[in-house]
Amino acid sequence: MPSECTPRFLASDNTSGICPEAMQYLLEANQADDLAYGNDRWTARAADRFREMFDYDCDVFFVFNGTAANSLALSAMGRSYHSVICHELAHIETDECGGPEFFSNGAKLLTSPGANGKLTPQGIEALVTKRSDIHYPKPKVVSLTQATEVGTVYSREELLAIRAMADKHDLRLHMDGARFANACASLNASPAELTWQVGVDALCFSGTKNGLAFGEAILFFNRELAEDFSYRCKQAGQLASKMRYVSAPWLGLLESGAWLTNAEHANAMARYLSEGLQALPGVSLMFPTQANSVFVELPPHAIEALKAKGWTFYTFIGAGGARFVCAWNTTVELLDQLLADVKAVLDVRA
Amino acid sequence: MPSECTPRFLASDNTSGICPEAMQYLLEANQADDLAYGNDRWTARAADRFREMFDYDCDVFFVFNGTAANSLALSAMGRSYHSVICHELAHIETDECGGPEFFSNGAKLLTSPGANGKLTPQGIEALVTKRSDIHYPKPKVVSLTQATEVGTVYSREELLAIRAMADKHDLRLHMDGARFANACASLNASPAELTWQVGVDALCFSGTKNGLAFGEAILFFNRELAEDFSYRCKQAGQLASKMRYVSAPWLGLLESGAWLTNAEHANAMARYLSEGLQALPGVSLMFPTQANSVFVELPPHAIEALKAKGWTFYTFIGAGGARFVCAWNTTVELLDQLLADVKAVLDVRA
Amino acid sequence: MPSECTPRFLASDNTSGICPEAMQYLLEANQADDLAYGNDRWTARAADRFREMFDYDCDVFFVFNGTAANSLALSAMGRSYHSVICHELAHIETDECGGPEFFSNGAKLLTSPGANGKLTPQGIEALVTKRSDIHYPKPKVVSLTQATEVGTVYSREELLAIRAMADKHDLRLHMDGARFANACASLNASPAELTWQVGVDALCFSGTKNGLAFGEAILFFNRELAEDFSYRCKQAGQLASKMRYVSAPWLGLLESGAWLTNAEHANAMARYLSEGLQALPGVSLMFPTQANSVFVELPPHAIEALKAKGWTFYTFIGAGGARFVCAWNTTVELLDQLLADVKAVLDVRA
Amino acid sequence: MPSECTPRFLASDNTSGICPEAMQYLLEANQADDLAYGNDRWTARAADRFREMFDYDCDVFFVFNGTAANSLALSAMGRSYHSVICHELAHIETDECGGPEFFSNGAKLLTSPGANGKLTPQGIEALVTKRSDIHYPKPKVVSLTQATEVGTVYSREELLAIRAMADKHDLRLHMDGARFANACASLNASPAELTWQVGVDALCFSGTKNGLAFGEAILFFNRELAEDFSYRCKQAGQLASKMRYVSAPWLGLLESGAWLTNAEHANAMARYLSEGLQALPGVSLMFPTQANSVFVELPPHAIEALKAKGWTFYTFIGAGGARFVCAWNTTVELLDQLLADVKAVLDVRA
Repeated sequence: MPSECTPRFLASDNTSGICPEAMQYLLEANQADDLAYGNDRWTARAADRFREMFDYDCDVFFVFNGTAANSLALSAMGRSYHSVICHELAHIETDECGGPEFFSNGAKLLTSPGANGKLTPQGIEALVTKRSDIHYPKPKVVSLTQATEVGTVYSREELLAIRAMADKHDLRLHMDGARFANACASLNASPAELTWQVGVDALCFSGTKNGLAFGEAILFFNRELAEDFSYRCKQAGQLASKMRYVSAPWLGLLESGAWLTNAEHANAMARYLSEGLQALPGVSLMFPTQANSVFVELPPHAIEALKAKGWTFYTFIGAGGARFVCAWNTTVELLDQLLADVKAVLDVRA
Repeated sequence: MPSECTPRFLASDNTSGICPEAMQYLLEANQADDLAYGNDRWTARAADRFREMFDYDCDVFFVFNGTAANSLALSAMGRSYHSVICHELAHIETDECGGPEFFSNGAKLLTSPGANGKLTPQGIEALVTKRSDIHYPKPKVVSLTQATEVGTVYSREELLAIRAMADKHDLRLHMDGARFANACASLNASPAELTWQVGVDALCFSGTKNGLAFGEAILFFNRELAEDFSYRCKQAGQLASKMRYVSAPWLGLLESGAWLTNAEHANAMARYLSEGLQALPGVSLMFPTQANSVFVELPPHAIEALKAKGWTFYTFIGAGGARFVCAWNTTVELLDQLLADVKAVLDVRA
Repeated sequence: MPSECTPRFLASDNTSGICPEAMQYLLEANQADDLAYGNDRWTARAADRFREMFDYDCDVFFVFNGTAANSLALSAMGRSYHSVICHELAHIETDECGGPEFFSNGAKLLTSPGANGKLTPQGIEALVTKRSDIHYPKPKVVSLTQATEVGTVYSREELLAIRAMADKHDLRLHMDGARFANACASLNASPAELTWQVGVDALCFSGTKNGLAFGEAILFFNRELAEDFSYRCKQAGQLASKMRYVSAPWLGLLESGAWLTNAEHANAMARYLSEGLQALPGVSLMFPTQANSVFVELPPHAIEALKAKGWTFYTFIGAGGARFVCAWNTTVELLDQLLADVKAVLDVRA
Repeated sequence: MPSECTPRFLASDNTSGICPEAMQYLLEANQADDLAYGNDRWTARAADRFREMFDYDCDVFFVFNGTAANSLALSAMGRSYHSVICHELAHIETDECGGPEFFSNGAKLLTSPGANGKLTPQGIEALVTKRSDIHYPKPKVVSLTQATEVGTVYSREELLAIRAMADKHDLRLHMDGARFANACASLNASPAELTWQVGVDALCFSGTKNGLAFGEAILFFNRELAEDFSYRCKQAGQLASKMRYVSAPWLGLLESGAWLTNAEHANAMARYLSEGLQALPGVSLMFPTQANSVFVELPPHAIEALKAKGWTFYTFIGAGGARFVCAWNTTVELLDQLLADVKAVLDVRA
């Protein structure tokens, strides 16, 4: 990014900071000393709030980040000689530097294509039935991302169909909820409706992208999978000694309802941007805008020109694709600036 | 802890909160969006400050906690079929739930006794020379804790003697600096004098115990060992997406000098408590008080009575041993209360 | 070993070769091509013979060596954050170069002392109850060696007492049967009586020490632990493509009864040697001779002199201890030579 | 396979047995006891013969099977956060049940297409340059199979071009030599010409497919990579206690020259079969027959009919593809029977 420009952040929802509701609880948790390793006044309370919010007596664990949350959950759902079925664009496949393979001590990820970043029952079955000999890792888990890497969401019907296929082949169902709150907001569905009610065994619910500094919650609806999981977290370097600085901010999100309003805001901003971009001649959307990300195809010169103006965004999806991600603190003003800049850079050549 | 009592925290330096200097930087880092994964305005600056402070062009990495810092550093210093020599009371042996074995994929820890929680050159050599066949893991690393688990410190002479022994047997030297700042304060020595100048290859410097919410810095003075280490951190779930919430508070500690004044305060409080306890009849110190921990032998009824009064402390060191740990925010008032309570519970039976 | 001497082998039962019964089957298996990966005419038959011999419908797997057998069985019986309780002299602790830690991805071995190389219920309980927090790996498995590393055997009563303790603390029971046949012979007990009838969950039965070139059988009496175990063997490099060269020789041992007669012979030879040594002045036995190993204390000059005469034996058990191991092909002539040589070297100084 | 049929083996070169030259040495090694763990009279001699045969002072290790050989070699060539570039049909990707991922503790395999089962410099570069961020494992090794999985061979020119690309991107070069002898025979090239002279860092040379019962040799031409490798083998369950039963048969292959004549014979048989099949109407070859495997497309009814006649062969390569593999003991008579049967089953429908 050119030094003369103030960066303008739409690269990811992890460029935003701590939201006020989370910060308030963080500051409150800092008012007094407290017990370590989760035995404080905040952690059990936050876990209870998750159970209320999901209307289910699930097991809840807090870890530092998404790599760990997904990798540890997956390692508890299978063994080293099992495989995990995921979409070819899944974060666990493309952006964790082999984290799932490392924590599971060698489990293989089997990837499937699928429109709009979504796994299909057929895609899953194709991978399961491709091989059945011991020379290839046995499929044991389906991992899907809700909302997906390309800003779409699985409907409840789609989730039920995947669960049915998982049942057919004795597979466990893992949900990477890096943007789970955005999916709830998008589908106007409760957390329960998108998880245990459709047969999800374990959910990794991201707080970081939702307004925290760090912190992901792992929820096991299939509680057998959570046996001794606290030992696993400890051994794997994911037990915070000052746990309250993860759990209290989480509690801030949950008790205030910010977990949802943050997501609703981000989604609304993405829709605003999406509509604005689609109104510009020469801009075409790559995927439906169903959560807080907008993917558009832009000519190379436009991408360069926007970067030169300080806009931060990723271009990893295919040739000419640009991803803009909105967060809890994205403003209409910022998006209007972007829309104006996109219009301007496109006009230059037009 | 009985519910009627307000807990009074001397269990560990991880029951204290975020110190003001760290909090100030955290709040400042929260003023604006910033790039993720350490590409923000804070992380490089914090790493540079470490290099200045150690007067050495070392490689610096930030991870979430001590389990990860030590385990990842050790895994970079050897391979799965190597072994790590450490004191029998070392945290990596006694309190990481097999973290070093997990991250290294099987390296064995070989433990040595040693007075005052300290390894000796003789103890190291005894382990190295015990076996030399391929049926036993080959020693590759010496790990020592500065300050030690029992609140003592290695002098520069002791460190040089250990380094000489390490050289004799081609061993790398790892320092668990969970309380490194306390050691610097205790010895009135610079960070350089206690690390690369005495041949330390890698240091894990704890910020958590020094006044942060989370965050340890791994410093490689032997930079060959740091090759591709950033990939290791990422794969192992230790790369924070919002890294600035680790690095900015660290910068607060470093730029304000709080890293040292916090330690000096904690050490002074420990000395105050140690002297007060020794003045009581029937109380005997288990180890010299050289850092921020005080270990005393107390009769069982006294331990029970103190716990009933809400004091939190550990009793894991031998029969009748109690550990009190002071932190950056421990007050003379709190310690006076403790001394009064100890006196009272001892008098009861006397 | 001095080059002028012909080596005389009593170092271990792995210096002996393939016994005639095993060789006959090996040669027969070599008469024609056959299917790979255990789908041949021999492997299922060998597994069936194990089930008959143990009078139990157990799951049977063949692997190459003892490191793999024990490490894979243990990795199936726990997870990386669990621990395995074993005797401080157990082979898995002292001579596998961290194999169990490697295959389990970090499980810790917790060692216990115990007279005559044997774990006791009290020793097990002491380790289980020492810690119950998540900072230390949770005990999940007891591993005992039958016959032990020092040539003794667990009686059925001792095994039942260990099983009772294992039940009390929800532990699984693994038996390292490197010299299981010798234990059966020594106790005049059936394989069933020493395994599933006393609650053993998994047995690693060594063929190598019993007269094969390679090959260990892993028998799971607790069949839940064997779920997908064939995948584990494959992934871990322990599935032989020409499996019949492991399974056919095993079948030779089983169908001929050589598995037992070989062990009986080795035990008898050990008793002969033990009695002969005890008859010599100045020689004292270190452990009762209950299987095929004899441990005696000899003066250093005697050990040197015997090695100079070409005798191969280990001296790893304490100062001055020498271990002589008899095998299926050890002869009275060889032992008489040894006894004469021991007598001679002791006389020299007397 | 229908029980009424005698199986006729062309499924793989691992359905054949031990060749006479190997058996002779095995029997000789069984004449007397010998030292364990490779300290016998055979192992060093076999390693020396490899060094003579390759005209290079390489480090030589013996392991049990190909899964282990490749996985251990690769784990020594990179770390868990590195990746290995291989062809999409490479055995390490398709048939090791995640072995490379397991032994390396998580390294990812990156696959590339390529005509005739061969990697190309362009394919390698495409994978290396696709990503350069820490969120994806860093490519460190190129693994190629010589001869390939589809029975073709890399010429020296192709190998040199791959080496040049590896140099450009600082990659190490691993050769899976499951059929290395067949490649030497096919190219009429010396072992040296196909390995260190073209920059191969490590070769896994299969004895099992060449006429042994088990046993692969790992040769490190880049000896730095072999540092402490014997510990790795031991820890990973690949150190045979009765090592002479791997090394003596290897010596038989090497000293008799059978390693090459066996391969020449198998290749000649494959050419004979290939020519015979091509002469039949309606049969088309899928890949050039350059080593000991023949891949042909057959109509489904023909495949079924041949299996019904007892022929064992694989059909894993694409729709309608059949693989026939010749070995050291394949006879013209057997191939003539196959050709007659193929002709007959094709005629049925014609």
